[in-house]
Amino acid sequence: MFKDGWFVEDFEGQTGGLSFKVDDFLFEETSPYQKVTVIHNSFLGNVMLLDELVMVTEKDEFYYHDMLVHVPLMCVDNPKEVLIIGGGDGGSVREALKHPSIERVVLCEIDRMVIDVARKYFPALSKDLDDLRVEIHVGDGIEYIRNHKESFDCILIDSTDPIGPAEGLFTVDFYHNVKAALCDGGAMSAQTESPAWSMHQVAMIRRKIEEVYGKAHLYLLPAPTYPSGLWSCTLALKSNRDHLSIDEERAKALAEQCRYYNAEIHWAAFVLPNFVREAL
Amino acid sequence: MFKDGWFVEDFEGQTGGLSFKVDDFLFEETSPYQKVTVIHNSFLGNVMLLDELVMVTEKDEFYYHDMLVHVPLMCVDNPKEVLIIGGGDGGSVREALKHPSIERVVLCEIDRMVIDVARKYFPALSKDLDDLRVEIHVGDGIEYIRNHKESFDCILIDSTDPIGPAEGLFTVDFYHNVKAALCDGGAMSAQTESPAWSMHQVAMIRRKIEEVYGKAHLYLLPAPTYPSGLWSCTLALKSNRDHLSIDEERAKALAEQCRYYNAEIHWAAFVLPNFVREAL
Repeated sequence: MFKDGWFVEDFEGQTGGLSFKVDDFLFEETSPYQKVTVIHNSFLGNVMLLDELVMVTEKDEFYYHDMLVHVPLMCVDNPKEVLIIGGGDGGSVREALKHPSIERVVLCEIDRMVIDVARKYFPALSKDLDDLRVEIHVGDGIEYIRNHKESFDCILIDSTDPIGPAEGLFTVDFYHNVKAALCDGGAMSAQTESPAWSMHQVAMIRRKIEEVYGKAHLYLLPAPTYPSGLWSCTLALKSNRDHLSIDEERAKALAEQCRYYNAEIHWAAFVLPNFVREAL
Repeated sequence: MFKDGWFVEDFEGQTGGLSFKVDDFLFEETSPYQKVTVIHNSFLGNVMLLDELVMVTEKDEFYYHDMLVHVPLMCVDNPKEVLIIGGGDGGSVREALKHPSIERVVLCEIDRMVIDVARKYFPALSKDLDDLRVEIHVGDGIEYIRNHKESFDCILIDSTDPIGPAEGLFTVDFYHNVKAALCDGGAMSAQTESPAWSMHQVAMIRRKIEEVYGKAHLYLLPAPTYPSGLWSCTLALKSNRDHLSIDEERAKALAEQCRYYNAEIHWAAFVLPNFVREAL
């Protein structure tokens, strides 16, 4: 909602997500999928809205991208091929490429406008989209994944909320196809909403992933960009490995390039408050 | 700021803290210290503003009160006497009384209006203010603490931001007096602002506490109520004890009464992201 020179994200019509002064209105167009808006705020930097929900801010995107990407990748030895579904801003691509073994990253984003806008207004996020290891596929992730069996070491579901274009990325059917698209030993992670303000939804998504993998590990991260500031991802492995057992040397080298992620954060993220434990 | 039927917390004139629809405007008066406002929002419950900054919401107060209170109290064996400076809403009193050894809790709040408003509009927070173990002292915490040496096992600095009435609660002088007011073996904790959006301030406050105690342990918590949703407290001990070494049986019994705190959360809260480690 725009109110008197400010943007206030509307969370269920009652409460706000992020709110900020519109210092500069940079872009607004409607793609076949959604309305894409870019606003500049002097504190947050450039902010991308999709259908008036905040997707990314330059200031605080790093928490989310670190945690969506590095937690699953550290649960795979020697990961080579990564698939990112959604994530057209490029932040997850940039993080995946920090793992030196990576040979190929496929970005499957349904909305070309998001990629174009990221290239123009979010250079720190999109900077690696032209890396030779990156393939950009503009299309539907649900369809893409159906046609690629045992192809990826890691699949990252970097989606919008489970309403609108991303709804199909939160179904048991889709998670089955993700599992089939993973190589043995692979890992997936998905953004799975806010435990603080949408715990029921978090629990429902996690249970669907668990139904497919047998186990699904919820983990938490701060997200100043999103409603309540407390967010979750869910990790699932196509292996019997302990998700807390990571190579500490590798984590240390990675942490030198990260503002949020380190080995201790990996472990701490899986520690859940009582109200979350009880709701799962 | 009030905009078109909504309240939007003004964080440095550029960005918002919590924002929400004003469903019911319940109270507004100016005390000798600050403007006290109570608004009802159907999602957050009742919300208390002090000088138009959000202090407490019924929905999300538990993260902050659990972490401010239980982390230091679990670092003291058999705590009996607790001093709370600020905290007129009663939330910290309620949490302190969950420790069965507690015999006396002194609440030292400068602004009687905050206590009165909490009694009327925040019954779930203020419910234990009439407990026989609780003494309410309406007055200046800085003065109170000067006159009480080696009197408390635990001191909780449950203050507003370091501007306005609470400014004096963020000084080296004050921390010296807090240390003098602690018994040997005692612990203090203070709310120390947002690492996400005020890291410079967080680091400055922590260094002052470290100057007095030799060590000061920053820990993190989610706080949907406050700007960025990521908040910090700082723990300091008047003992040589390891702040991570807590009685697990005691923590387990406590966790049964808490929505956030448990033993694993105690450990995980001290794990810091790289950008925080580097800024300290």
